Amino acid sequence: MKTRTAYLTLETKKRIDFVNITSQVEDEVGKSGVKEGIVLINPMHITASVYVNDAESGLLHDFEKWLEKLAPKDVGLYKHNLTGEDNAYSHLWRTVMGRETVVAVTNGRLDFGTWEQVYYAEFDGQRKKRVLVKIIGE
Amino acid sequence: MKTRTAYLTLETKKRIDFVNITSQVEDEVGKSGVKEGIVLINPMHITASVYVNDAESGLLHDFEKWLEKLAPKDVGLYKHNLTGEDNAYSHLWRTVMGRETVVAVTNGRLDFGTWEQVYYAEFDGQRKKRVLVKIIGE
Amino acid sequence: MKTRTAYLTLETKKRIDFVNITSQVEDEVGKSGVKEGIVLINPMHITASVYVNDAESGLLHDFEKWLEKLAPKDVGLYKHNLTGEDNAYSHLWRTVMGRETVVAVTNGRLDFGTWEQVYYAEFDGQRKKRVLVKIIGE
Repeated sequence: MKTRTAYLTLETKKRIDFVNITSQVEDEVGKSGVKEGIVLINPMHITASVYVNDAESGLLHDFEKWLEKLAPKDVGLYKHNLTGEDNAYSHLWRTVMGRETVVAVTNGRLDFGTWEQVYYAEFDGQRKKRVLVKIIGE
Repeated sequence: MKTRTAYLTLETKKRIDFVNITSQVEDEVGKSGVKEGIVLINPMHITASVYVNDAESGLLHDFEKWLEKLAPKDVGLYKHNLTGEDNAYSHLWRTVMGRETVVAVTNGRLDFGTWEQVYYAEFDGQRKKRVLVKIIGE
Repeated sequence: MKTRTAYLTLETKKRIDFVNITSQVEDEVGKSGVKEGIVLINPMHITASVYVNDAESGLLHDFEKWLEKLAPKDVGLYKHNLTGEDNAYSHLWRTVMGRETVVAVTNGRLDFGTWEQVYYAEFDGQRKKRVLVKIIGE
């Protein structure tokens, strides 16, 4: 059995942003030497998501607008912000988009359909964040 | 360590539909020979979900009505549809329902509670779609 | 390869409740002897969630209020309740919060960022429920 653990570092210029990390994940799978297995990818922070969907700029815009509708950013809406935070919305957005994804590795590559791409979604950025990539298999 | 990769093919008659794939997943687990491990199940498409919930027709109706409320199908609501698509809603629905599920395999079987069932949820169907089943363990 | 399967039992006093199970999961990882691998944690029931987020009481309050907004508890809103159930909302809430989480195990420990905690979210409790913890690795 082989395993590999990598930590990507991301720092977005905008507070809310979407970053395609597919090629970085593929690089780590290649380095692992794993031919058959799985890869887990998750932010190590609770105001961000890793998810799989389309690399299409209109959709990224739609996601942000839709999340704002489901859970508005207004600070006064949330008890969490009584702690001095102003990012309660980002905990909810990350819940909708999901924390992690698990992707199959087959023949040493991400076993993806045509349009599947791995995204890091930042909901409270402008500071360094880490994304864990854990590969297990043989 | 043992691994098995299978691709199920589904084509729903309706654009939006829910298909119970539990027995197909169980068959693949049986063929894998894995007694202890996990199985990952995900669509290879970004307008569909695999999730675990109840096999109850009323609930399936409730899911569809609720998703329509959270993200209406109206084409004009979404920038993604400016690309010529009309399926932006389906990318959002799949986000709510989740892309994938990971299920434990114990004693060679899906380690499920009484009511857990694996569903494929199609949000833009009437064409062939693939679902990946990846089993790893020993 | 090593695997371990454990079943936690939880019974909340309130119908809706949030329980931090991080230390119980860590105990199981310790017992497994796995140094590098993953751990899958999921309820074996379809009206509950396991998720990773902040251990902050205001946020738990925000989650419940927000879920009630996204999918009100009113019995008459849902076809599922025509079966005699009154818990349709809990199937939807669990969909928003997610069924399972998969966490990396590195150097024999949960490979978490500073604020990541594993929660069991009960949406139809006051009775015994089981949570599966499956560890695989080496």
